[in-house]
Amino acid sequence: MAHISVPPDIPGIRSLALFRPETGDPLYALVQVLLRGPSPLSFAQRELIAAYVSSLNRCKFCTDSHAAAARTLFGEQGVLVSEVLENVGTSMIDPKMKRLLGIAEKVQESGKAVLPQDIDLARKEGATDRELHDTVLIAATFCMFNRYVDGLDTWTPTDAKMYDGMGKRLSTKGYILNKNS
Amino acid sequence: MAHISVPPDIPGIRSLALFRPETGDPLYALVQVLLRGPSPLSFAQRELIAAYVSSLNRCKFCTDSHAAAARTLFGEQGVLVSEVLENVGTSMIDPKMKRLLGIAEKVQESGKAVLPQDIDLARKEGATDRELHDTVLIAATFCMFNRYVDGLDTWTPTDAKMYDGMGKRLSTKGYILNKNS
Repeated sequence: MAHISVPPDIPGIRSLALFRPETGDPLYALVQVLLRGPSPLSFAQRELIAAYVSSLNRCKFCTDSHAAAARTLFGEQGVLVSEVLENVGTSMIDPKMKRLLGIAEKVQESGKAVLPQDIDLARKEGATDRELHDTVLIAATFCMFNRYVDGLDTWTPTDAKMYDGMGKRLSTKGYILNKNS
Repeated sequence: MAHISVPPDIPGIRSLALFRPETGDPLYALVQVLLRGPSPLSFAQRELIAAYVSSLNRCKFCTDSHAAAARTLFGEQGVLVSEVLENVGTSMIDPKMKRLLGIAEKVQESGKAVLPQDIDLARKEGATDRELHDTVLIAATFCMFNRYVDGLDTWTPTDAKMYDGMGKRLSTKGYILNKNS
């Protein structure tokens, strides 16, 4: 049971957005534009950064839902998601994404951990200002969502099929808060 | 100089919101409703939680601007802000806020660090679901803002007078993104 009286049987962030829609609305608007708005990073790449940071924060709800979305969006290359969550260094993800995931890992630790040389290494692989920006903001945003969801101990489903369903919904419909629970 | 080409001479979060207004808009909407919308916590108490978490994340820009806003809003009790930033335990802040700040400190560490006994201790001092919710979300949100601002190495003014000015503006005008820079 969550630490506060959120609507029952609704997992993770959605239970919190229904408890307090005034903050739920800008939170959903943020994640929709960040993960589905225009960006040089693909939907799949952005979902992968979200899942990776959530895994570093050990937030099962966010890790499993965004990993499922990333797997669907990567399609035939979906195996990359498990490879990255296991070990970015040995994964077959492309060199630019490897550097961007390295920056996301630094952000998860602390904003101050991102050093000029981390940025330079990503630029050498072709990363642009906009890609660097979106990577840092996605990483920072999931440091928020992970703490919000786990800090109030919201319901975390354990059934893998539920996450597969969420992944498919998120990959096609994005982040729209349905207030009819 | 920031890690990416944000507008010059504009500090912290504002430079990032101008670089990418699509995400700036929901970020400002979030902080406006969270720190200035209806809540059982006063504006001053909410600014104090924001400043405290930012100080734990060693984000000078967010700490000094929100501490300045909290000082203005606490008025004659403004000294509480420095006391809390120095040491919550020995500060003269009231017992309920002491427990809520304790929860904010746990959230800064990790969402999973918030234990049922932390919630129980806050409830014994009168904390409600809504106060617990707002405390956790403010703490989580500043774990995001701190990482965003420092992860891209935005300009952090060192002149104390600039923060006094920001504090006064934030205490009266709130969080409205002025796009005419």
